[in-house]
Amino acid sequence: MGKIYKAAMVVIGNEILSGRTQDLNVNYVANKLVACGVSLVEVRVIPDDEAVIIDTIRSLKDVVDYVFTSGGIGPTHDDITAASIAKAFGVELVVNEEVRGVLLAHYGTEELTAPRLKMACIPEGAWLIPNPVSGAPGFVIENVYVMAGVPRIMQAMMDDAALMLQGGAVVHSCTVPCSLTESVIAQGLAEIQDKWTGVDIGSYPYFENGRFGVNIVLRSSDEADLDAAERDVIEMVASTGG
Amino acid sequence: MGKIYKAAMVVIGNEILSGRTQDLNVNYVANKLVACGVSLVEVRVIPDDEAVIIDTIRSLKDVVDYVFTSGGIGPTHDDITAASIAKAFGVELVVNEEVRGVLLAHYGTEELTAPRLKMACIPEGAWLIPNPVSGAPGFVIENVYVMAGVPRIMQAMMDDAALMLQGGAVVHSCTVPCSLTESVIAQGLAEIQDKWTGVDIGSYPYFENGRFGVNIVLRSSDEADLDAAERDVIEMVASTGG
Repeated sequence: MGKIYKAAMVVIGNEILSGRTQDLNVNYVANKLVACGVSLVEVRVIPDDEAVIIDTIRSLKDVVDYVFTSGGIGPTHDDITAASIAKAFGVELVVNEEVRGVLLAHYGTEELTAPRLKMACIPEGAWLIPNPVSGAPGFVIENVYVMAGVPRIMQAMMDDAALMLQGGAVVHSCTVPCSLTESVIAQGLAEIQDKWTGVDIGSYPYFENGRFGVNIVLRSSDEADLDAAERDVIEMVASTGG
Repeated sequence: MGKIYKAAMVVIGNEILSGRTQDLNVNYVANKLVACGVSLVEVRVIPDDEAVIIDTIRSLKDVVDYVFTSGGIGPTHDDITAASIAKAFGVELVVNEEVRGVLLAHYGTEELTAPRLKMACIPEGAWLIPNPVSGAPGFVIENVYVMAGVPRIMQAMMDDAALMLQGGAVVHSCTVPCSLTESVIAQGLAEIQDKWTGVDIGSYPYFENGRFGVNIVLRSSDEADLDAAERDVIEMVASTGG
């Protein structure tokens, strides 16, 4: 069994906490990490507040292999992520000449206004995550990947960041849907979980068109175990009447 | 200025962290809290892991007025929220006779199997949050509101929980959409933010149909300030060409 690589995600945004915006970035990052063999172990949604950003980054960066952030790297007064991350690492926020070049190419000299130039301010020592959508890049400092909040831009940045990640064994999964309720399969499922300790078995009830059902999801980095446990689940569901 | 009531939310679920499921509960809770005059200050998504649940609840319950959890209160082996919450508070998990009655009425004597009876196990001293959808209730212990993960059930529980909350001044909001980019309005917006310190002004870029735009969102518990700041924003956007 190799090393398990762990990640945390920090969504920085008052708009998520106020309910104005439905977050879509966590799900994208989560799926990308699964494919890279990295386990997302915690997500935090925090406000655009310097002290909170600094505390959160400092408390997470030493306990996981990777931290991903989304939000707050634009040109307006409420975009304080880059400055806060610099403070979290105790480094200066400096105009990055490479980013200035990228922005110059994107906007032209006359349109590279002071607010836009703010997006060239990157913590000293960080390297860049390209932004093919709107120019201003994200960045990586140590193990913290700082990305935009707009989903389309964040996704492009995450695709790029994923190429740099070192991960462990990829966790495979399969789903056994059934129209029984959770209570009916609970006993059998617990026995199968006890038998296959290397397989993580979850049971996710849903309610659709006036009927309950449940999706049984099996996850493991060992495909043979996964297949065997899946057969046990299918047999148990069938014998229970599902 | 009255007390500001603060809340945190804890989403308990491997299925969110693995990317299998898109969370919809945070947004529902966030909007409900705004209407109650309660400020959601942090969200954490954590795995179905007893030690993590205990740590998270203990670290949040003393720093906010309310904690809301979703997920992990069903009948299967991976539903460990109720037991973990009991441990977080150092109380016993006991069969609650009121819940046993609710489940008996819902399922009938023969169908009240051991896994279903598990849903009657509630931390000692907790009071119940009714579940009009599928019987098994959520519960409240001190300031922690424990709710289901299935959105339709969670929403019914949250609607009920919201009736019990004491909140402060309700934060009102308004949105000024504009087709300019953030960089163009950044300077003017910062000046308006400096002028109206009691209004929280956020700027949320979007990318749709190949075009960028931005929604400027103003939030305040003072409606007169909010209206005045909104007029300033509209005037600034118009004078900037938006």
